Amino acid sequence: MTKAGELLARYMPIFEWGRSYDRTVLTSDLTAAVIVTIMLIPQSLAYALLAGLPPIVGLYASILPLVVYALFGTSRTLAVGPVAVLSLMTASAAGTVAAQRTAEYLEAAITLAALSGVMLTVLGLLRLGFLANLLSHPVISGFITASGILIATSQVKHIIGVSAGGDNWPEMLGSLAVAIGGINIWTLAIGVPALAFLFWVRSGFKATLMRLGVPPRPADITAKAGPVIAVVLTILAAIAFDLEKKNVALVGEIPSGLPPFAVPSTDLALIEQLWVPALLISIIGFVESVSVAQTLAAKRRQRISPDQELVGLGASNIASAFSGGYPVTGGFARSAVNFDAGAQTPAAGAFTAGGIALASLFLTPLLASLPIATLAATIIVAVLSLVDLKTPAQLWRYSKADFAAHIATIAITLIYGVEMGVIAGVTVGLLLYLWRASRPHAAIVGRVPETEHFRNVERHSVFTVPHVLSIRIDESLTYLNARWLEEYVLERVADQPEVRHVILMCSAVNEIDASGLESLEAINHRLLDAGIGMHLSEVKGPVMDRLKRTHFLDELNGRVYLSQNRAFRELSRDDGKTAPPADDLARGMI
Amino acid sequence: MTKAGELLARYMPIFEWGRSYDRTVLTSDLTAAVIVTIMLIPQSLAYALLAGLPPIVGLYASILPLVVYALFGTSRTLAVGPVAVLSLMTASAAGTVAAQRTAEYLEAAITLAALSGVMLTVLGLLRLGFLANLLSHPVISGFITASGILIATSQVKHIIGVSAGGDNWPEMLGSLAVAIGGINIWTLAIGVPALAFLFWVRSGFKATLMRLGVPPRPADITAKAGPVIAVVLTILAAIAFDLEKKNVALVGEIPSGLPPFAVPSTDLALIEQLWVPALLISIIGFVESVSVAQTLAAKRRQRISPDQELVGLGASNIASAFSGGYPVTGGFARSAVNFDAGAQTPAAGAFTAGGIALASLFLTPLLASLPIATLAATIIVAVLSLVDLKTPAQLWRYSKADFAAHIATIAITLIYGVEMGVIAGVTVGLLLYLWRASRPHAAIVGRVPETEHFRNVERHSVFTVPHVLSIRIDESLTYLNARWLEEYVLERVADQPEVRHVILMCSAVNEIDASGLESLEAINHRLLDAGIGMHLSEVKGPVMDRLKRTHFLDELNGRVYLSQNRAFRELSRDDGKTAPPADDLARGMI
Repeated sequence: MTKAGELLARYMPIFEWGRSYDRTVLTSDLTAAVIVTIMLIPQSLAYALLAGLPPIVGLYASILPLVVYALFGTSRTLAVGPVAVLSLMTASAAGTVAAQRTAEYLEAAITLAALSGVMLTVLGLLRLGFLANLLSHPVISGFITASGILIATSQVKHIIGVSAGGDNWPEMLGSLAVAIGGINIWTLAIGVPALAFLFWVRSGFKATLMRLGVPPRPADITAKAGPVIAVVLTILAAIAFDLEKKNVALVGEIPSGLPPFAVPSTDLALIEQLWVPALLISIIGFVESVSVAQTLAAKRRQRISPDQELVGLGASNIASAFSGGYPVTGGFARSAVNFDAGAQTPAAGAFTAGGIALASLFLTPLLASLPIATLAATIIVAVLSLVDLKTPAQLWRYSKADFAAHIATIAITLIYGVEMGVIAGVTVGLLLYLWRASRPHAAIVGRVPETEHFRNVERHSVFTVPHVLSIRIDESLTYLNARWLEEYVLERVADQPEVRHVILMCSAVNEIDASGLESLEAINHRLLDAGIGMHLSEVKGPVMDRLKRTHFLDELNGRVYLSQNRAFRELSRDDGKTAPPADDLARGMI
Repeated sequence: MTKAGELLARYMPIFEWGRSYDRTVLTSDLTAAVIVTIMLIPQSLAYALLAGLPPIVGLYASILPLVVYALFGTSRTLAVGPVAVLSLMTASAAGTVAAQRTAEYLEAAITLAALSGVMLTVLGLLRLGFLANLLSHPVISGFITASGILIATSQVKHIIGVSAGGDNWPEMLGSLAVAIGGINIWTLAIGVPALAFLFWVRSGFKATLMRLGVPPRPADITAKAGPVIAVVLTILAAIAFDLEKKNVALVGEIPSGLPPFAVPSTDLALIEQLWVPALLISIIGFVESVSVAQTLAAKRRQRISPDQELVGLGASNIASAFSGGYPVTGGFARSAVNFDAGAQTPAAGAFTAGGIALASLFLTPLLASLPIATLAATIIVAVLSLVDLKTPAQLWRYSKADFAAHIATIAITLIYGVEMGVIAGVTVGLLLYLWRASRPHAAIVGRVPETEHFRNVERHSVFTVPHVLSIRIDESLTYLNARWLEEYVLERVADQPEVRHVILMCSAVNEIDASGLESLEAINHRLLDAGIGMHLSEVKGPVMDRLKRTHFLDELNGRVYLSQNRAFRELSRDDGKTAPPADDLARGMI
């Protein structure tokens, strides 16, 4: 490939997979696209509802973004579109700007997509994907669990046919409790069976089909179409029983047609109000999408590039904004369906977009009689699978710090909402990390008998000599713990007055920054004053390279040994009466 | 000691050192107090001027805070009071509330001391001293250098007798350039000689005294009194030449008397405006003070307790607020003088407070004719010693990341002022740290011939076998790098198709958090799928303890070896035809 070709392939992976596109791949991609389209139609409507937007916006957000992701994304099988958590976050952010179902609210949602698109693209071009690492697994899973609970709770009102509100869990529950008297029995008669049916579809439908002789794959795919069955049946019920007259909320008239060309707001006041939520939406969307993409890529031994994924998702969101949609990302459920249905390339996504476009052209009149309760049931069943109640106990057993970050994220998300939840999770995780990094582990070590291996004196029965103190430092020496090392070494020396040599075993020291170097210099001076030699052992290559660029090694009141064993052997021979053996060991690196 | 006694001694160290107080110690402390008092009088007036406050406020801030620190502080020799950097920060924060020399401005300064006092005390009681670690040495030294430049520049106007302003360096220089035409020649005639004299006092006075036969110690102490000489001489000059008539700015009438009882504002709007600067003042003050205290304590093999220092400084600042002062902390210059002059206990600080109280009762009338230029010269000479121009080059050689944090702190402090400077320094330092932590070092290792020691194959000539891949992980496995490890290991395995065993050498893995564990599990699954064994070696005690609480070790597709040498010896024997040797090596820890 030429250099320009390589650059194109890097930023537009279609130039790579497009080269080998053939009829077989086309058939696979088309099949997957049909299945995903069927799944995506009710889901898109439902998530738009969750985001407080007209249902059609969910379809808009499922057309152009998929085409654009197919051009720029690196995952072969990721299915992009509206997802539950981002819909909730959109509702939360746009709700601070205007009331739901107003033009300003829609404008805010579109602007969120645009801002998030620009942010993701910039992060990708600057190769800042590592920032997503700030969200640890416990924080993400806490956030997803709490979001699932919030989302499911927010949909209960649609199932029982009452009006209720609330931005956080206590408010939602309170509002439901107040409204519970006004239950609409007809809505309940649609909502509860729909919910039960969808739960059964998810758990027992596939098994039933297989017992009836349907082979596993078709059974699996039919089970995935369960929501469509619920949609069709409840539309028929709504028409048959004329439920509109009985105050059952229906989707109502949806303007059919392709997405409009929308221009995101450039109002600076609006942007100032929305940039923080847009950033959080970007990060959460990216983390969700990249986890899904990595999981699926690994199954087929493919690779994705996280930084290019940022560009792909960014471009998708910009496309969503310009076609009247709202923030999108790679969804777990639909990507898994796409993968299982045999999608080979991102072209499957583009074909899905075509399917959704056809639906929004021709299918929307049929959806007017769809009960909102059915969509709510779809959402509840989808998000309850996100709620993970086993993780807290596992984390508690494994790591109290991770448990604390997990629980803090859940609690703050439930009580203060999604934005505060993410911020609190990142902050708590970071503070716990910094706290641990500032109080690292170190051990006094001795030689395991008949080996050259050195282990902690408190855990193993090892050989030591009183005048040599070997300290293994179990952490990089950085500014976070520079003060700690000084205190630790000097206290140990104070405890053992017969010490004449200190060996700092640096096998676990992966870095020494400028602050760490200053503390080593300080320790060296103090030990020199006390007439004690200071030696280093097992200093790693990259660390040693750096130390050689300073005066530290010239001033070191001792030597640097390649191995702890050699350091211990040489220094334990020193009986304090003669000079230490000087054979081949010149000052400095040995 | 009883339990109550121990608690008292912990939170009020006076109950410890007070027990052994005797006549000898008293004499030492009194001598030191006299010397520090003489040094502190002009300095306190000057720093109050720098903070934009009436000079007397500098004296107020040097009385009660010293007494309170003597009760609660753990350093025996730290001298608390107004310091240059905090004075600049106070001016910057109070300047956002009101104009200098107004009642509101003074109220803001007092409130800053109160807020900072409360914050420090709370941080101390919660034992959160580790937060000060967030300021790395390069960030602190960059901040101090830039503050020194800002402070010196801000005083030039007083030396040349013009009015100028500016909150940052470009503004200050611009303002000086505009004002330069209005130089007051009489002010210049005081300011420039005072400046030259003070520079000479600092560099050559002591040597001259010693040449004249004065012994070193008295020579040193006399040199420290240089500013007092400048004060006396310029007061005499101001009176002799009637400089007030010649528009030379003088200190003017200072109300004599003891500090008033002041009540800090409880106005919530003011507190909301000041809490961020107060937090930054607290942190900078704490870092400065604790560094000085640690340096001095180490010289006499004493200890300080950073968390109790927070309480001590917090109580001092609260005392400062209630006696009409402004934020204080332990200063470098005066603490060093206190130490050199022989102070033994914090009682020396209390005696200094007595000296300053006498000065503010009886000396203030004499100071009315003191030219402001003299105080400005005192400040310039003091702060220029803070400017450190060697550090950037040293950092550049040693660590580009530390250099970047240092330069960013200097640049942003000069351009955007002290508050943004501190925030930017901490943020840049943290981002660089997280960036490095998310892309750690790992090495493929082999055995150094005739040893049991394993080193990087790229740096040493070592022994390896093609079907065993030994990877030394040079970092703890945390959420920051969980994704990296997965990619790294799987790429290495993909590069070497003959590999049948992977050994992850964990000698540098100091922690595995929940996210790290998940990535290990993922690697284990992938290697299992590929028919490759996954083994761990040299897992540290605390890490192993945790792994034992999970199912990971049961699911591990291989073994955990005590030493890398043993793992390599056993696994390199596996010829792929027979099962690996199973003698005494049960599954799990060997």
